[in-house]
Amino acid sequence: MELQRAVRFALFHTLQAGARGERRPIPAKGLTGPGYDGHTFWDTEAFVLPLLTYTRPRSVSDALRWRHQTLDLARERARALGLRGAAFPWRTIAGEECSGYWPAGTAAFHINAAIANAVERYQTVTEDETFEREAGVELLVETARLWRSLGRHDSAGRFRIDGVTGPDEDSAIAENNVYTNPMAARNLRAAADAAARHPDVAEHLGVDDEEAASWRDAAQTILIPYDEPLQVMALFFAGEAFTAEEKARDFAYYEQLTVRDSSLSACIQAIVAAEVGHVELAYDYFAEAALLDLDDREHNTRDGVHIASLAGACIIALAAFGGLRDHGGMLAFTPRLPPALTRIAFSLRVPKNTQLRIDNEPTQSTYTLLTGEPIDIHHHGQPLRVTTDHPTRCATPPTPTLERPTQPPGREPKRRRAPAERTNGSPAAPARPTAPAPRKPARRRSNRRRGRPKPPPEPGP
Amino acid sequence: MELQRAVRFALFHTLQAGARGERRPIPAKGLTGPGYDGHTFWDTEAFVLPLLTYTRPRSVSDALRWRHQTLDLARERARALGLRGAAFPWRTIAGEECSGYWPAGTAAFHINAAIANAVERYQTVTEDETFEREAGVELLVETARLWRSLGRHDSAGRFRIDGVTGPDEDSAIAENNVYTNPMAARNLRAAADAAARHPDVAEHLGVDDEEAASWRDAAQTILIPYDEPLQVMALFFAGEAFTAEEKARDFAYYEQLTVRDSSLSACIQAIVAAEVGHVELAYDYFAEAALLDLDDREHNTRDGVHIASLAGACIIALAAFGGLRDHGGMLAFTPRLPPALTRIAFSLRVPKNTQLRIDNEPTQSTYTLLTGEPIDIHHHGQPLRVTTDHPTRCATPPTPTLERPTQPPGREPKRRRAPAERTNGSPAAPARPTAPAPRKPARRRSNRRRGRPKPPPEPGP
Repeated sequence: MELQRAVRFALFHTLQAGARGERRPIPAKGLTGPGYDGHTFWDTEAFVLPLLTYTRPRSVSDALRWRHQTLDLARERARALGLRGAAFPWRTIAGEECSGYWPAGTAAFHINAAIANAVERYQTVTEDETFEREAGVELLVETARLWRSLGRHDSAGRFRIDGVTGPDEDSAIAENNVYTNPMAARNLRAAADAAARHPDVAEHLGVDDEEAASWRDAAQTILIPYDEPLQVMALFFAGEAFTAEEKARDFAYYEQLTVRDSSLSACIQAIVAAEVGHVELAYDYFAEAALLDLDDREHNTRDGVHIASLAGACIIALAAFGGLRDHGGMLAFTPRLPPALTRIAFSLRVPKNTQLRIDNEPTQSTYTLLTGEPIDIHHHGQPLRVTTDHPTRCATPPTPTLERPTQPPGREPKRRRAPAERTNGSPAAPARPTAPAPRKPARRRSNRRRGRPKPPPEPGP
Repeated sequence: MELQRAVRFALFHTLQAGARGERRPIPAKGLTGPGYDGHTFWDTEAFVLPLLTYTRPRSVSDALRWRHQTLDLARERARALGLRGAAFPWRTIAGEECSGYWPAGTAAFHINAAIANAVERYQTVTEDETFEREAGVELLVETARLWRSLGRHDSAGRFRIDGVTGPDEDSAIAENNVYTNPMAARNLRAAADAAARHPDVAEHLGVDDEEAASWRDAAQTILIPYDEPLQVMALFFAGEAFTAEEKARDFAYYEQLTVRDSSLSACIQAIVAAEVGHVELAYDYFAEAALLDLDDREHNTRDGVHIASLAGACIIALAAFGGLRDHGGMLAFTPRLPPALTRIAFSLRVPKNTQLRIDNEPTQSTYTLLTGEPIDIHHHGQPLRVTTDHPTRCATPPTPTLERPTQPPGREPKRRRAPAERTNGSPAAPARPTAPAPRKPARRRSNRRRGRPKPPPEPGP
């Protein structure tokens, strides 16, 4: 019940922040407080817009049209940097870059890919051709041009993007970020595809077939440092670029190192944990994300709620437990319910602009198309056509029993179910933990990175 | 015995023509007659140089250095055509284009790829770094530039080369020739690889990483019209671009249509016939190619011998019966002896500049490295390391029994063994045919295409 309420709280605030955006930016705190000075960041496109796309797509059109209105400023910024296309601001309120700190601000060029990805997802779900012709193609083209001019081929023909800061913000000004590069590749391909769909719009933007081909080539040859441990962020957002084995190995590696000092970490860790089989751990992270503001865990709810993290909590329900992935425009579901939950049900606005209801129980899932043309989806890897004729029921394979991974000392997530309860076979409503959880240390790099003074670190364990 | 002598005759004339070339062109008639006015064509690079590479590589260096000496003329020609790089002449004696007929002359741009391929093969076998730095890289770069500027990407990102004439010379000024495009792709890749091996030479030639990447991309995305029946030429020269099924299907399709009115047709048909399993048919084509001038089958031996066809007869022995392929610098053998032969043995100069002796008997092959470092080869698809320690023996699987394909009426090759003898299990020396073979019609498009007046066609059957 507590988490049910928390998810409703999260959904309410996300909708509040976005649903009446009316072509103004969606700030990091929504309309709930003065934190971050009303600025918007990349996490609006990366966390808030995906949720809104599947629930209230019209608000996404508004949010992206706001970005489109700021294109001239973004183009000017690119020119000032000696680059082509548009360099969208890392931190802004009206379209100008408001971060004065290059390494954690402008160098986080991946915001371009987050915007492009949001355009692509919105377009897939709504098939809104007016939007695409008026704003979508241009957003994709100008962001692609940024990548093409920012990167370069090496002598072996691999396309490198050096000197960028990844979404973790720790590896500032590094080469070939494992998140940025596959996201840039997706941006480049999406731009070429959009130009091919709308040759007249492309021509108006000065795109010819050679330029589009140069985007496809850069995407095709992009260097992804597979031999380095991958970041958990990349494993979700650019998941199609990695194998299941790479994901399992890299999650195991990162889980024992990740201190989770961004409010967005728990969302991503929950989703990847569930994907690689750690569903109970995912559930604990789910609770952490969903209760972040309600429990004031960061001691800063007075500044306003964390809209992206709240959206992220809802995305955990969809992507971790419902197993939703939308790479390449195809919806794939791999539902995995944690033992504490007997059911997760939700409705999504899905491609062809129809409505799909998904009802996940521990051993089966039911897909019901409420309106519109049949759609093709995947359920646990099997292709499936869902029609409005009747609900489609699929068996859900049992979740494997894996040893719970460890976290850095003091950074273990609060357990929703005590270990003793875990052998109890009967699913139950989420219970309060029986043992007091260790309090999370207050070190918050998420504040430092956005230009606030860093609080003194607590003594390490 | 007759064919043994014919192969020696062929090898003698090929060596005569090429071995003392001394940086002058190798003409179509070698030094044996006035035919073709002493001009050289693409078949020197496509047929003569491969044989010389595996037998007398130094002469190949001379022949290619002659091409290199004519680069300024070829660059001038490209400029006149509004193209970059070098457009080597279809027909020449001193480097200028001597064909006045565009569709069957200049438009046969595939000569660029034949030259590049000869450079690549020579380089693989000899590892002659002096040649590569002084001539090889530049030949590859300038031919690649021609392709890159001649072709263009379409809106789907496929690289097209339109308005060219293929090696068959029938489909003049056509789009995306099925031979030309994969050969151009190989040229483009080879240039990028050579530039990466010799960055200083590449820089001197004005090649940067972006240009090299644009070659790789064009090669990667090149349009190959797989849905059209393939030409037999492409099945051999660009064989790596097609599957075994495609080869068998397309050989069957073309064999019943091909009138074999070029003296080079029999060579290619023999090799592809053997590859898809028609070894006896291959043997008949082998005889036709080897005896072409000795029997004066084209009634023009007085003009001089057909050097490329003679070289082609030797290549049949290597590539059809010895099953030699050298795509990508790796030697692969798939020996298949026709019933008439009990043994085919030859020595090759092979990669790492060593000498490999190959002795093929009906049920086994023996590979003996005479000098040098161990080399890796394939025998019927199995990887194999051959060293100087001891000969390596491998079993050869039996050749499948396939129904003999048919040719257009009147174009059946002369059978070396009458059908009645074919059930005789004991291998024998080649026998004269017991039945008189139909005389081949005298229509010779190979003369027309090289600018001579076309003789009046005989009434069709």
